[in-house]
Amino acid sequence: MLLQSELLDFFNETRAQSELICSFLETEDYVVQPIVDVSPPKWHLGHTTWFFEEFVLKPYKSDYQLFDDHSAYVFNSYYESVGEKVIRTDRGNLSRPTVAWVYKYRNYVSKALKDFIESEELSPEILEVIEIGCHHEKQHQELLYTDIKYILGNNPLFPKYNDQFEENPIQDIPQEWIAVEKGNYDIGHNNTDFCYDNELGRHTVYLADYQISNKLVTNKEYIEFIEAGGYKDVLLWHAEGWDWVNTNQISAPSYWHNIDGDWHQFTLQGLQKLILDAPLSHISYYEAFAFAQWKGLRLPTEQEWEVANSKFNWGSRWEWTESAYSPYPGYSKAPGALGEYNGKFMVNQKVLRGGSVATSNKHTRPTYRNFFHAPLRWQFTGIRLAK
Amino acid sequence: MLLQSELLDFFNETRAQSELICSFLETEDYVVQPIVDVSPPKWHLGHTTWFFEEFVLKPYKSDYQLFDDHSAYVFNSYYESVGEKVIRTDRGNLSRPTVAWVYKYRNYVSKALKDFIESEELSPEILEVIEIGCHHEKQHQELLYTDIKYILGNNPLFPKYNDQFEENPIQDIPQEWIAVEKGNYDIGHNNTDFCYDNELGRHTVYLADYQISNKLVTNKEYIEFIEAGGYKDVLLWHAEGWDWVNTNQISAPSYWHNIDGDWHQFTLQGLQKLILDAPLSHISYYEAFAFAQWKGLRLPTEQEWEVANSKFNWGSRWEWTESAYSPYPGYSKAPGALGEYNGKFMVNQKVLRGGSVATSNKHTRPTYRNFFHAPLRWQFTGIRLAK
Amino acid sequence: MLLQSELLDFFNETRAQSELICSFLETEDYVVQPIVDVSPPKWHLGHTTWFFEEFVLKPYKSDYQLFDDHSAYVFNSYYESVGEKVIRTDRGNLSRPTVAWVYKYRNYVSKALKDFIESEELSPEILEVIEIGCHHEKQHQELLYTDIKYILGNNPLFPKYNDQFEENPIQDIPQEWIAVEKGNYDIGHNNTDFCYDNELGRHTVYLADYQISNKLVTNKEYIEFIEAGGYKDVLLWHAEGWDWVNTNQISAPSYWHNIDGDWHQFTLQGLQKLILDAPLSHISYYEAFAFAQWKGLRLPTEQEWEVANSKFNWGSRWEWTESAYSPYPGYSKAPGALGEYNGKFMVNQKVLRGGSVATSNKHTRPTYRNFFHAPLRWQFTGIRLAK
Amino acid sequence: MLLQSELLDFFNETRAQSELICSFLETEDYVVQPIVDVSPPKWHLGHTTWFFEEFVLKPYKSDYQLFDDHSAYVFNSYYESVGEKVIRTDRGNLSRPTVAWVYKYRNYVSKALKDFIESEELSPEILEVIEIGCHHEKQHQELLYTDIKYILGNNPLFPKYNDQFEENPIQDIPQEWIAVEKGNYDIGHNNTDFCYDNELGRHTVYLADYQISNKLVTNKEYIEFIEAGGYKDVLLWHAEGWDWVNTNQISAPSYWHNIDGDWHQFTLQGLQKLILDAPLSHISYYEAFAFAQWKGLRLPTEQEWEVANSKFNWGSRWEWTESAYSPYPGYSKAPGALGEYNGKFMVNQKVLRGGSVATSNKHTRPTYRNFFHAPLRWQFTGIRLAK
Repeated sequence: MLLQSELLDFFNETRAQSELICSFLETEDYVVQPIVDVSPPKWHLGHTTWFFEEFVLKPYKSDYQLFDDHSAYVFNSYYESVGEKVIRTDRGNLSRPTVAWVYKYRNYVSKALKDFIESEELSPEILEVIEIGCHHEKQHQELLYTDIKYILGNNPLFPKYNDQFEENPIQDIPQEWIAVEKGNYDIGHNNTDFCYDNELGRHTVYLADYQISNKLVTNKEYIEFIEAGGYKDVLLWHAEGWDWVNTNQISAPSYWHNIDGDWHQFTLQGLQKLILDAPLSHISYYEAFAFAQWKGLRLPTEQEWEVANSKFNWGSRWEWTESAYSPYPGYSKAPGALGEYNGKFMVNQKVLRGGSVATSNKHTRPTYRNFFHAPLRWQFTGIRLAK
Repeated sequence: MLLQSELLDFFNETRAQSELICSFLETEDYVVQPIVDVSPPKWHLGHTTWFFEEFVLKPYKSDYQLFDDHSAYVFNSYYESVGEKVIRTDRGNLSRPTVAWVYKYRNYVSKALKDFIESEELSPEILEVIEIGCHHEKQHQELLYTDIKYILGNNPLFPKYNDQFEENPIQDIPQEWIAVEKGNYDIGHNNTDFCYDNELGRHTVYLADYQISNKLVTNKEYIEFIEAGGYKDVLLWHAEGWDWVNTNQISAPSYWHNIDGDWHQFTLQGLQKLILDAPLSHISYYEAFAFAQWKGLRLPTEQEWEVANSKFNWGSRWEWTESAYSPYPGYSKAPGALGEYNGKFMVNQKVLRGGSVATSNKHTRPTYRNFFHAPLRWQFTGIRLAK
Repeated sequence: MLLQSELLDFFNETRAQSELICSFLETEDYVVQPIVDVSPPKWHLGHTTWFFEEFVLKPYKSDYQLFDDHSAYVFNSYYESVGEKVIRTDRGNLSRPTVAWVYKYRNYVSKALKDFIESEELSPEILEVIEIGCHHEKQHQELLYTDIKYILGNNPLFPKYNDQFEENPIQDIPQEWIAVEKGNYDIGHNNTDFCYDNELGRHTVYLADYQISNKLVTNKEYIEFIEAGGYKDVLLWHAEGWDWVNTNQISAPSYWHNIDGDWHQFTLQGLQKLILDAPLSHISYYEAFAFAQWKGLRLPTEQEWEVANSKFNWGSRWEWTESAYSPYPGYSKAPGALGEYNGKFMVNQKVLRGGSVATSNKHTRPTYRNFFHAPLRWQFTGIRLAK
Repeated sequence: MLLQSELLDFFNETRAQSELICSFLETEDYVVQPIVDVSPPKWHLGHTTWFFEEFVLKPYKSDYQLFDDHSAYVFNSYYESVGEKVIRTDRGNLSRPTVAWVYKYRNYVSKALKDFIESEELSPEILEVIEIGCHHEKQHQELLYTDIKYILGNNPLFPKYNDQFEENPIQDIPQEWIAVEKGNYDIGHNNTDFCYDNELGRHTVYLADYQISNKLVTNKEYIEFIEAGGYKDVLLWHAEGWDWVNTNQISAPSYWHNIDGDWHQFTLQGLQKLILDAPLSHISYYEAFAFAQWKGLRLPTEQEWEVANSKFNWGSRWEWTESAYSPYPGYSKAPGALGEYNGKFMVNQKVLRGGSVATSNKHTRPTYRNFFHAPLRWQFTGIRLAK
């Protein structure tokens, strides 16, 4: 856990980063919600602020005056035990509060929180909630990038976000297999740094011999799968993956456009020719699985990934694993509203390991467990194979 | 038809009025689309501009340079014969083009059109299309008011639009019945002023004796219907009206809120106590029909309304009639894309007559035929009874 | 109205006819409901029986014992004022009561009703309800044919219903135009024979000069429309017709199958080569309208049809008109549950005039008003053009 | 694997059992499909027969004549690589082939297969497919019971299936905790008897210390959960479980009816008063999880269940585990159409262990892995707790 003095820096840096990300937007870009999984950027800015107000200032700072009585209502997300919430599909229908209002709200709460940290010695309990709030905001920073990409990339004008944002780092190494020997291994968070509750409960697992790739699957390899008819061969797919392909007429990763026979990709730098050696991105779990089937290989489990992680480079793509998102042995939810954080999603989701080009500084680690529903593609998801 | 000199004034006035209506908005209010029937205000501003560019400047002004190649794509609406269109449900997902861009586009096209009118003598055909374009924009001005009302009135913060906008003029007269004798009457537009194609084909109809009210139904009368259990008596409703009431859990007109036992109404001036003597508004055809059934009366046909219209005051509410929207005898669509204008909607809609507090200056007349689907309530709709 | 002595014959003949229609079915055919508009044949047999029990025997025959307490529940249809009903989409999920049970129920009620008619002198009120019950059953006989056709025609095995059922009578006459002069005409039922309440209120209408075809549109003419690209030309269609064509990928009338380049049609006699000179059938109102547009002609109104009906042969197809289904002037619903019969459907439906090869004996007349939603095609619908 | 001589008995017994199960049905009961998860009994009878024809007789018996060319089409299920299939939601719309036809088809194929087994010495490959076919039919026997229960139990007349079918065996023992020590354990099938491919790949897992109940949760205990407000406490539920409860207005297990304050349960013996000491049944995974949360306990993993299974009685309820359905290490699909059998469902389903009162003789074992989607309740599902 961070010391109180470190926490102030961490808080300041976190808050500034969210606003830096949004500094490249037009006012209109903050407002829309093209699909339910994407939230309007102004909602992210307001929600991360509401978190500090609701869980730190309101309960712990005795003389704190709410910025506005309605804000909680609009910026609550899924914390059902804390009052009524705005239905998730409605976020993009709300023109008010305005973006200007949201920035005022941020400033008001940031200032109140800084004063709070600077003015008195805070209990470990309060420090912990503030630290959670910063990590919570860092999670939303990743969503800001991916939601902005969705908003711009699904606009028929294909507007650029920022010329400097590089999302396709090439791994210029030959593909090799890293072998791990069978045996008992310990899994889960094991130091005093911050982690989420779903990483806790360090525990032993037995793994059989396995091999895992040192390198992510590239666009070039995936084009081979497409050209070999991968999207048309039912035997490569899960039954519900096959339904998904057909219902949605999927024939390529998200953001790919075939223009006059050449593959292009919408990126945060705008529409570009596809870089063949770059790591594949924006594929669903169904596609990751079908690709592995086609190769005669498989996806690693999250335990295999964690045990081997120090032997390969990771961090540019969230990597789909074969593991369903379940509680670790001995997991129990934190009491109260913060306890809603992770446990309630532990059904029908797949674990992803790693991190991505959109992940905030200091926001991932070898034990971090990300999770999404199998069909989702708007994150920077990728594939690392195992056998 | 207007003379070329009159047309310039008409055009200028029309264009200015759309911008005046929007001058009370925040940038964010221009962008959202909470339901499919509502369009974002920036879309209305762009679409009415696109109409002049597509149907006047592009075909008739020889040296005209398009403002931007993509505009047609984004602001086309239902003119399927003119290129691809943006799906109606997607309008609220587009953050670009920005509001500032739309105003530039408006200025560019307005200037080009003014120059065009001022610089040369235009053929009657061109003058007619420009006049249609002005009336088209006036139609969208009414939609701007009602769509803005929907956007603000369905926001949990209930923001005001404009303190000066009075939407509830009271008819301070006793209710009386106006009798009309049976006989043959002529229906349809019969002078040289502008009208839409659906008003043409003046023709004879035979009407039996009937009586029509001099006054619109008031909020007070409608509360009696509610309190008598009108929403719970299946025998008052059409079968599909009953399904609509139950599926949507309807128990009052749109924008009504019962707060601690008192009826309130969201208006463009904000949330207010309901004015009992004001004319009822924001009810569906189903509700209008059920209310009439409950009274032992009926809605007039559009012919009955038109024949009697000079004997009562109208213009604050669009009035539901019993008539389905059908072509007049001898109706035929105009050739080409403009021919898509009205005829393609002549199925499963009800005719409304009159006009409303949101109707633009010079945009209604005794023969005007408005039309909406039976369940829609976001217009300023009302009830005038007949027997 | 029928005399009591005539009514007994009419009742016997009606009841026998329903059972004759079903005599060609397998037990399994009585049970299924492939779409919501179609009801299982056993439901038709039970429902028409329930009608006599609910509206005649229960209220009027003092010592009547219900056959079974549950029958009302299962066989009620849309009479919402008479107890709970089985949701229409659930009719095909009920394996019980069995077909054998339904026949026992029919026999029990038929016998009770015959005894009732034979044993005492009945009031005009009772006689009228019995006569309505017979006409109600005759309506369901037409539905039995069309629902059976749907059940068998949408089975991949294409089973025949009955080799003797001829559904394609050819009109072997040249097409000619029948001219009708403008003037006032009287519309609606005008004698003492049975009619439904929606035909009453004989009233005057003014009609302009018009011409109406002596002949129904043939399959051959419709193939020309298809081959000319009629289903692909947006300008021929209503906006919602166009959506319907595209959403449902419609490219031919219902029951048509193009097998190796030859048009075939499923009929109650099984799958056959399409008879080119036979009258077209199984098209929606949208298709009827688009075909007329393509011809540069139009559909008649129901008044035009009624005024001219004695000058052409009709009765093999229900003919779509341009008229929306609305109340005649002076229409008012009958009191009580029977009053739900027609008025509650008077919104968003189109009037069809004529009758069809499936219409029961004595069940149509020049003033009969049938009505269906615009997209429905499972009835024997056809086209007669006007200009 | 069974010897050829044993196989004949096994085949005969299996085929006879399916027909015995259906012998209590009316013809109509064979036809309907009230929800997509349930199949019409005649489909089960036909499909299990089609399996032997498609995978044994057609490929291996040289002179075999198909019973009918269309049967494959109608009775194929999810084997997408073997020709077109009937959409699962359409099975209940098909009145043909008739039940009588299906029995003829069964007899024809059964006879052909018996002749085949009796007449020549078959290769191990063929014997294996026949044995799989028998186990496949036994799986469908369980579905026959549960689908029949659904068909009858959702009929408003609540018809009985069979007075002799006892579905509520009471475990008349005190609840105790069985302790298992931490360590490495082997999981998966380990003998030469038949098993499915998903049980293969015996492998080692490490388990921490745990305890598992010797007894299933009873109806009485579940009523306590209901009365304590379990269905209304958001904190007990997964996020999607909570949506499921609210969307479907769930407030009790399936088949429970509260009549005048007393809980009743529809069983295959008809509607009965709920037996408080009987094991709970017909609950979803969401409910099993929420109940365990409320108790402060948890569901076992499938490995924990398998390791401890010899220490408790099981077999009356399929028991929800915490484990998602995933491949065992080293799992690979069988080649060809039979390879579609299990692997394609290994996403978004939960593993159930045990068996139920509806499970066929010899059709479960300690390593058997059943699997269903989290919300499904029509199987005889139950709860065994762990800690």
